Amino acid sequence: MLTIFGSIALDTIRTPASILYEVLGGAATFSSISASFFSETGIIAVVGRDFPDSYHNTLKKYINTNGLIKKKGKTFRYDGEYDITLSKRKTLKTELNVLRDFNPKIPDEYKKSEFIYLANNDPDQNIQVLRNFDNIKLSMCDTIEYWISTKKLSVIKMMKNSNIVAINDEEARLLTKEYNLVKCAKKIIEFGTDYVIIKKGEHGAILFHEDIIYPLAAFPIENIKDPTGAGDCLGGGMMGYLSNTKNINMKTIKKGLLCGSILGSFVVEDYGISKLLSLQKNQIIDRVKKYENMTQEL
Amino acid sequence: MLTIFGSIALDTIRTPASILYEVLGGAATFSSISASFFSETGIIAVVGRDFPDSYHNTLKKYINTNGLIKKKGKTFRYDGEYDITLSKRKTLKTELNVLRDFNPKIPDEYKKSEFIYLANNDPDQNIQVLRNFDNIKLSMCDTIEYWISTKKLSVIKMMKNSNIVAINDEEARLLTKEYNLVKCAKKIIEFGTDYVIIKKGEHGAILFHEDIIYPLAAFPIENIKDPTGAGDCLGGGMMGYLSNTKNINMKTIKKGLLCGSILGSFVVEDYGISKLLSLQKNQIIDRVKKYENMTQEL
Repeated sequence: MLTIFGSIALDTIRTPASILYEVLGGAATFSSISASFFSETGIIAVVGRDFPDSYHNTLKKYINTNGLIKKKGKTFRYDGEYDITLSKRKTLKTELNVLRDFNPKIPDEYKKSEFIYLANNDPDQNIQVLRNFDNIKLSMCDTIEYWISTKKLSVIKMMKNSNIVAINDEEARLLTKEYNLVKCAKKIIEFGTDYVIIKKGEHGAILFHEDIIYPLAAFPIENIKDPTGAGDCLGGGMMGYLSNTKNINMKTIKKGLLCGSILGSFVVEDYGISKLLSLQKNQIIDRVKKYENMTQEL
Repeated sequence: MLTIFGSIALDTIRTPASILYEVLGGAATFSSISASFFSETGIIAVVGRDFPDSYHNTLKKYINTNGLIKKKGKTFRYDGEYDITLSKRKTLKTELNVLRDFNPKIPDEYKKSEFIYLANNDPDQNIQVLRNFDNIKLSMCDTIEYWISTKKLSVIKMMKNSNIVAINDEEARLLTKEYNLVKCAKKIIEFGTDYVIIKKGEHGAILFHEDIIYPLAAFPIENIKDPTGAGDCLGGGMMGYLSNTKNINMKTIKKGLLCGSILGSFVVEDYGISKLLSLQKNQIIDRVKKYENMTQEL
C-alpha cells in the first residue's frame, strides 16, 4: 500500500481560455488519483466543513480516504493565473485555512504501508509523519518555494530522511543556489537522499542516482489546457507504479518515472483533474508503450 | 560530400566568467568542423581581408575551404553577452560587413555534393545556392530571428525547398505564431519540408516527420562554459553523420540527430570552438554510446 500525505485544495485556475472556480485540486489529490491506477493508495489530508461531498465521493472512488479529516474551518484555497504560454503561473491568492495547524493522524490500517509519498506539506510535518511508519521500503518527498524560503533546514532534513527527492528545476535552483541542474542534483544527493528527480515541466525530467543520470524527455502534447498538477501526477504515478513492483532497482525506478511522467502528460490535456477522471489504465499502458517506441532509436 | 553554406564570424563572447574577443565563430565554422568528424565537408563562405591566417589554417585542418572567399572589407562580427545562467544571450552588436552583398560562388568540386546544409544565411541566397546542386539526396536549412522578421516569405520558400528544417524553439514560435512546439512543427511541415527539428538548447530537441515524433533529451553537462554554436554543431554533426550513411531513413535520421546533439554537448564545455579542436572521433562515439546506455530504460 502507498500512503500519500499532502494538500487537498479548492483551486481557482485562470487560463487564457477558461477560468475554473474552486475545483478539486491539491498535491494529494493529483498524486493519489494518479497512484491509484497502479496501487492501493491512502491519503492523509485535511479539508474544511465547506468541502463538497461530491469531491469527497470523487476521491473515494479512487483511493482510501480514511486518513482524510474534515475540520472546522475552510478548505485550503489556491488561486493562480497562467499566461498565454501556459508555462508561467502567477499566484493570486493562497489561503492555508485548515492546513495551518493541521495535526495529522495516521489510521492504523495505513501504518503497514511500505511506500510513502510526502507531497509538498510543511517539511517538519513530513518528518513527523514519516516516523509513524516502521516498514518503509521507499519514501519520496517533494517541496515548494514557500518551504525552501521559510524552513530551508527542515527541507534539507526531510530530504535526508527520504529515499527519493522530486523537485522542480526552479525550486532545486533556489534550494541549492546553483543554476546547472546536474550541480543542483549533486548537492541534493549530498543532503543524504538516494535519488533525485528534477522536474522540468514540458521538458521532462532528469533522474540522478550515484553516478547514473537518466534524462527523460516529456511525451509531447499538442493541446495543453491546464498544466496544474502535472508534477504531482508524476510523483504519484511513479510511487504508485513502484508500490506495485516487487523489486526496487534502477530498472523499475526508471520505468516508474516514465509511468509518472505519462500520467503528467495526460492531466495537462484537460482542466484540473478532469482528464484523470475519464482515464483508463489501458490508456496509460498504451501511452507508455507509445513513448517507448517513439524514443527507441534503432 | 557535404557542402555547408553559412557565416564565418569573428565572435566576441561575454560570459560572467570570461570575455573572448574576436574568436573564430559563425554557423559555418561550428557546423562544418562538427560535420568533419563524420564526412568530407566543404564550406561556401566569405571573410574579409582582416581574417587571420591562423583561423584560415584551423579551418583547413578540418574541412575543404576552396569555397571560402576572401573579400575586400571586414569579416562579419558578432558581439553577445550571456547572463549568469548562460541560457540567455543579449546581442550587443552585429556587423554584417562582407556578408552584406556576398555573391556566393560554388566550386565545381562541390557540385557533386549529395548533402547540403544551409546554415542561417539570407534565405534568398540559400535558395539560389541550392539551385547549383543537381544530385541532392538530403538538404537541411536553419534560420534566425532576423530573417523571419524581415523575409518571412523567403524563409518559408527556403523551407519548402529543404528536406529538413532545423530551428530553435523561439524562432519556430516567431515563425508560426504558435506557442506549442507540436503545433509549430506541424505548421512548418505544412510549408512543404519532410522533417522538422525543434532545437531546445539544454532541453534537447524534438524531431517531427509525418506522424512520428522523436523527443530527444539533451546529454546532461555539468560544466557549461559557453553555449555559443551548440545548435550549429547539432545541425552540422547530424548532416555529417548522414552524409556518411548509405540509407536515409527514420533510423539513421534519429541516430544522426543524436550524433549532432552529442557534438553540441561537447562544444558548450569550452569557449567558442576550443572543445571541437581538441575533440577526437572516439570521444564522440563513446559519448553517443554512453547516452544510449543512460537513456535505455530496461
